[in-house]
Formats: sequence, C-alpha cells, structure tokens
Amino acid sequence: MIDTRYDVLGIGNAIVDVLSAAKESFLQQEGLSKGAMTLIDADRAESLYAGMGPGHEISGGSAANTMVGVAQLGGQAAFVGKVRDDQLGAIFRHDLTAAGVTFVTPDAQRGPPTARSLILVTPDAQRTMNTYLGACVHIGPEDVDEEVVSRAKVTYLEGYLWDMPPAKEAFLRAARIAHTADQEVALTLSDAFCVDRHRDSFLELVERHIDILFANEQELLSLYQVQRFDEALQHVRGHCRIAALTRSEKGAVILSGNEVHVVDAEPVREVVDTTGAGDLFAAGFLYGHTQGWALERCGRLGAVAASEIISHYGARPEANLAALAKARLG
Amino acid sequence: MIDTRYDVLGIGNAIVDVLSAAKESFLQQEGLSKGAMTLIDADRAESLYAGMGPGHEISGGSAANTMVGVAQLGGQAAFVGKVRDDQLGAIFRHDLTAAGVTFVTPDAQRGPPTARSLILVTPDAQRTMNTYLGACVHIGPEDVDEEVVSRAKVTYLEGYLWDMPPAKEAFLRAARIAHTADQEVALTLSDAFCVDRHRDSFLELVERHIDILFANEQELLSLYQVQRFDEALQHVRGHCRIAALTRSEKGAVILSGNEVHVVDAEPVREVVDTTGAGDLFAAGFLYGHTQGWALERCGRLGAVAASEIISHYGARPEANLAALAKARLG
Repeated sequence: MIDTRYDVLGIGNAIVDVLSAAKESFLQQEGLSKGAMTLIDADRAESLYAGMGPGHEISGGSAANTMVGVAQLGGQAAFVGKVRDDQLGAIFRHDLTAAGVTFVTPDAQRGPPTARSLILVTPDAQRTMNTYLGACVHIGPEDVDEEVVSRAKVTYLEGYLWDMPPAKEAFLRAARIAHTADQEVALTLSDAFCVDRHRDSFLELVERHIDILFANEQELLSLYQVQRFDEALQHVRGHCRIAALTRSEKGAVILSGNEVHVVDAEPVREVVDTTGAGDLFAAGFLYGHTQGWALERCGRLGAVAASEIISHYGARPEANLAALAKARLG
Repeated sequence: MIDTRYDVLGIGNAIVDVLSAAKESFLQQEGLSKGAMTLIDADRAESLYAGMGPGHEISGGSAANTMVGVAQLGGQAAFVGKVRDDQLGAIFRHDLTAAGVTFVTPDAQRGPPTARSLILVTPDAQRTMNTYLGACVHIGPEDVDEEVVSRAKVTYLEGYLWDMPPAKEAFLRAARIAHTADQEVALTLSDAFCVDRHRDSFLELVERHIDILFANEQELLSLYQVQRFDEALQHVRGHCRIAALTRSEKGAVILSGNEVHVVDAEPVREVVDTTGAGDLFAAGFLYGHTQGWALERCGRLGAVAASEIISHYGARPEANLAALAKARLG
C-alpha cells in the first residue's frame, strides 16, 4: 500500500450557507419543498434572498463539513471542490483552511460565482435548502489529482456531485484511483430527492465502487423504493462492505457482512438546527475508522459529533470535538 | 412431530392485578423501587393495600396476559398456573377462559389464597408492582402435563417462575418435554431485577434450553452485565436461536443467526400505562411465529399488540386485536 498522507479526502460542492429563520408560511408562499435540497438558478437565488429575513453566512457543503469534523477530531483531512476567486470563495477557503483541512483545488478564474445555499430553518429545526451551484458546476475529472487520492485512506464523495455530469466523471475517476491504490471509497447519498434523481445510477455505483455507504432513513427508503426501514436494511446488507445508516433520534445501525451494531443517538439538550447532522456523523465515523477503531465505536463517535452540530445553527462544529469525543467515549 | 393442539402454552404466575394511580411521593414514602416487580408477603400486602387509593382489579400474570393476546389474535392458547379455590381465583379463571384460553391447571384446595399484584401507576405511565405470590408458590413439576406440553408448538415460560424452586423444576421439566416432542421453548426474562436475582442460572438456561428469548433493554443489559444495548446485542447473537429484543419507543430488534431486523414501535396517541407491553409484544410475535410468518412480520405484530395495551390501563387487550392486526399489517 502507498504511504498515506490523508486520513480522509472529501470531494464535494464548495458552498457558503446563508441561514435564516423562517416561518412555515414563508415556505408555502415560496412553494418550497420542506426538508429538501432544491437546485436553483441565479435569478431565483436573487429573488428568494430578497424575501428572506436577516441571515448569517457559514461555510458549508456536505463533504466539506465532514472534512472539518475529521480535522477537528485530529485526523488529516483534505478537500476537493470548486470556488470562484471572489469574496465568498475567499471566505470558504479561509474557513476550511483555518479548521485544519487542506484545500487542494485552486480557485476558478472565470465563470459563475462561488456557490451559495439559501437555508431556511423552520421552528421545528428542519432545514430547507435552496442551492445555487455557481462555480461548482465546473468541477471535473481534471480536479482529481491521482497523487492526492492515492494517498488518502478514504476518499469520501457526496451524492450531490451526481447532479452535474463532469462532477460525476470526477467522482468515478476518484473511485478508480483509490481502489487501484488499495484505499477505500465512501459515499453519502446526500438527500432523498437526490437519490430520487439518480436512483439506478446510485444502485450501480454502490454495487461496484463503494466500500462505505452513509445514508439516512429517507435516503435508504428512496434508494431501494421500500416503505419500512427494515426492508431497506435487508437490501443494503451485502450491497456494500460497510453501511452506516442514520435515523435521527432513533440512532444508527451499522452493518458489515454478518456484523450488526445498533448505536443510540447521543442525548441533546435542545435540537436547534439539524443541518449537518449526517455530515458530522460521517466525520466521526470516518475518523474512527481511519484510526482502526471497531465499528461500534466509530458509530458512537459519529453520534457524538452529530449531537454537537444539531445543538446550534450551522453545520460546522462550535465545540472542541476532540475533547467532546474524549469526554463521551473515554 | 406430534400433532399439535395448541399454538402456544404459557406457564406462569396466576395473578390478579390491583391497579391504582399513585403519586411519586407515595412510592418514596413506601420505599418502593419504581418500575420494578417486588415480591411481598401477606402482611405487607395488607398494609400497602390499605394505603393505596381506589383501584380496579384485572386478571394479570405475565404469561397469562400473553396467552390472552395469542387467543385474541386467533391462536390456540393454553395456560398452566396455580390459583386457590377462592373469589380472586374464580375471577382469574373466568377472565382467562372467557378470553378463549384453555386453563389446564385445577384450583388448589388448600394453602395460601390466589396471588395479587398491587400495581401503582405513576403519572409518567410507569408501573411499580408489588406481588404477593400466594397460591403461585405451589406450582411444581406435577402441574406440567406431558401430553399438553408435547402438543404445543411453543411452550412459553416467564422468568418470574424462577423465584420459586418448585416452579423452576416445572420450568425445566416443560422444556425437556417440549424438546423431546420437537417443539420450541420460549422464555421472557420478566424484569431486570428478576434477571439480577437469577443471572447465572438464566445464562445457562438460555444457552441450553431456550429457542426464543424475549427481553427488554434493561433485562438484556442486566443479563450480560453491560452498559450499552449494542454490547448486549453482540452477546445475545448466537446465544439462542431467536432473540426478540424490545426497546419501548425505540422499537424492537429481532435476531436469528445472521438474520437481523429492526422493527419500529407502532405510533400510540397517548401512553397511559406500560403494564403488559412486553407481554403483548410476545403475544403478537408468538402468534405470527406459530403461523409460520417471517420474523420481521412477527415483530411488527408484536409492536401492534404492544401499542394497543399501553394505550389503556391494564395488561389485557381492550380492542379487537385480530382486527387491529389486519388493519395495520394488511
């Protein structure tokens, strides 16, 4: 095996989140599909932003959030994603680098601006995301460096990339390089609507290229088009080497061959915003996995990291995750 | 295999429950261990009853409750247990028989009166049980009829029997007869304190004689002396052929060899009294199992039956369970 330099390399959309509290009525008025991530164009981004209340900006992006979590837990994390050479791009790069993640992709010098996601947080702590992909649409196989991928223990891909054909090619190229180098490939299904858009393609991808699958309950039901969690569980067993299935307050189920673990959710005083729960679960799990931990302990660290992120707004950790992990897991 | 006559034969304590609403302060004042079943003597039963508020009487007993559930679902159910020839004994026999269960044990003609359990239901829907065993202490191997046991697909035993040496002998005799006749033996661990009293003995019993084990989370943690559900799950896998593990609102996990099922709890409008949740889960599961259903469906019927029982006071079904099962499972 090649010497590793990174524990986890994330490949995903480079997005700045714009969060704002919103009433249910605003979602209805704007015809928004609650809880989903909807792709919007530049004009729609302008008009929706005009109608939103005061917001605050936090660097986001699903895989990028996960890489920040891995780095804060003490892992070596790197990120591949595309921003433009504009103000939001500079903010995204600053935040990622300051969190200890190596951002390997240079700025785009032309084309659309840095991506943003207008996130409406309703009183029930659900988030409804409206994403203008901007510069992200230009990520492609040329952004996947063979040397970088080969030297990462796990290459972690977000399903959202599947929305853009060149990103999909980047995705497959990364998986091939990783496996040639005897490293692992992980995928998060991102959201149930994303799964709906790419179901057949994802099924084939999981079967052929994925070692570790992250999915929440809705994503899993959508992937296998079944009604109950247990049905989906039977499908996913054996479909990939490791499946880490998250169920919000019901905890997580980890499957690997004949191994099965039922991991409880960590107690949270108040759930403020569920944005990033899945991203941080993956961070905890992958950090543990790349340190050679047993699967149950990986799942427990995932639950701890997720519990931190849902106790405040935004999908980047505010507490010292490494200290929290030590306190909770010993 | 011998022709079967019964789907399930339950062996357990024949008890009339005396339920009364109680404040937390009453429990403290009386030094009662909340959520547990405590054995009390005749004098203590008198004095505790004197301090309780107005109550109502319902025939109970863990395995007896389960047999009523099996019968109401449409199964052939029989019960072995000891009452005295007194008024409470007559009530117990009437209620069991009226529910369609064959009560195979004759009344005791002498000795202590029919057993009663003084059950205090606190505002959080938890029940604290104080059981005077009375006539139950005289159940023994002579009450286990070879013909009856041989002809039951499943002989179901309650862990509480383990509190009395002759009942324990009855227990082991029934298990031997059932296995000789190629039938199955099921056990419910009854409660965590009961497990604590008989841990080593239960571990050996499960290993040597039990095909189907029913346990809730607290009982399972106590049995294997571990802290987390997942640890207990790893222990119980392979320890018996089928394990049906219940987790209140977290649903149930069913294990059998490499098979694993995660079954959600059924939604309940209001949890009124959790008395009998485990008993009725076992009823649904065993009814399904003796009809040759797949394990997941058995677990789902268990969840449906449990959801009915916790929506009202007492551990005997009030709704038409068979109709409810049809409505929920199709």
